[in-house]
Amino acid sequence: MPRILENPKDKILQEGKKILIEKNYAALSIRDVAKASGIGVGTFYNYFSNKDELIESIFIADWVKISDKLDVIACSEEFSLRHKLEYFYKGINEFLKNYMSIFYELTMVKGREKKEDCHMEHIYAATKNILEFHVNKGDLSIKIDIDKYNKLMCQNIIMICREEYISFDELMDIFEIT
Amino acid sequence: MPRILENPKDKILQEGKKILIEKNYAALSIRDVAKASGIGVGTFYNYFSNKDELIESIFIADWVKISDKLDVIACSEEFSLRHKLEYFYKGINEFLKNYMSIFYELTMVKGREKKEDCHMEHIYAATKNILEFHVNKGDLSIKIDIDKYNKLMCQNIIMICREEYISFDELMDIFEIT
Repeated sequence: MPRILENPKDKILQEGKKILIEKNYAALSIRDVAKASGIGVGTFYNYFSNKDELIESIFIADWVKISDKLDVIACSEEFSLRHKLEYFYKGINEFLKNYMSIFYELTMVKGREKKEDCHMEHIYAATKNILEFHVNKGDLSIKIDIDKYNKLMCQNIIMICREEYISFDELMDIFEIT
Repeated sequence: MPRILENPKDKILQEGKKILIEKNYAALSIRDVAKASGIGVGTFYNYFSNKDELIESIFIADWVKISDKLDVIACSEEFSLRHKLEYFYKGINEFLKNYMSIFYELTMVKGREKKEDCHMEHIYAATKNILEFHVNKGDLSIKIDIDKYNKLMCQNIIMICREEYISFDELMDIFEIT
């Protein structure tokens, strides 16, 4: 008798992620993901209409986790602003470590898609919360519009994750974040 | 009797640039470039082995102009640091205005190439000269390694040229550049 999974969609995402990271985009097959998830290929299609939809869902699930974690600590009195932004840095770093090569592979296979800004809203909302908290606390003085400052800060953190020529602490020193 | 061009290579670059900007990558033909330059197609191949080599040369020629201009003003006492960096900003802006859509087109046609950092050395050398001059003058205090600071500054300026959500002056205010 086949096992009945509590939440097949989560299981598919979890096993799909493992296979995606171990192998690559080209080598991931729906058959393997279904097998690893203990379901039939037909059941897979109840949840995702194709491989690309699965992969996008894997990305989004992990991406949303970054902002979810930030939301939890945003207004904590325990952590400094620098400490909170370091959580963000580490989250992005982990995400890119897992998926950067897949992004390159996808760009090679499919060309550049005009979706760069998608799913940044959650991140920006979370980091803006953090910045606002510390502005109100008096830890941070921002001379320009907070949304612009926020976007610039996020982009700088993502940039140093991608390029690694400058450390997180060095970036924080330049921006005078304590 | 055909005209004898003083410098056919420069003429090809100049006419190629016009056609590239007016049309796009796909629509540029060697035949048209040769015709506009007043040379035969055969002569074109004395200077460039194919269309891609021409286009790369057009990019490089304009790119090098940016750092050449910076070299001229790097150690000028007349201009402030902010003013010098604004030259850089305007140079990059002009360059991207001309070629951004071509870059996208090339990425779509050829996929992502691993050449992102190429030809940045001239730019970094020029902006580093400028930063060093103003550090020595006492206008600028840098807490981290100057090469890292320089690269971060250049990348931020290029970023705001591409994204335009933040003005040059706002960026300078954040970095406390006067």
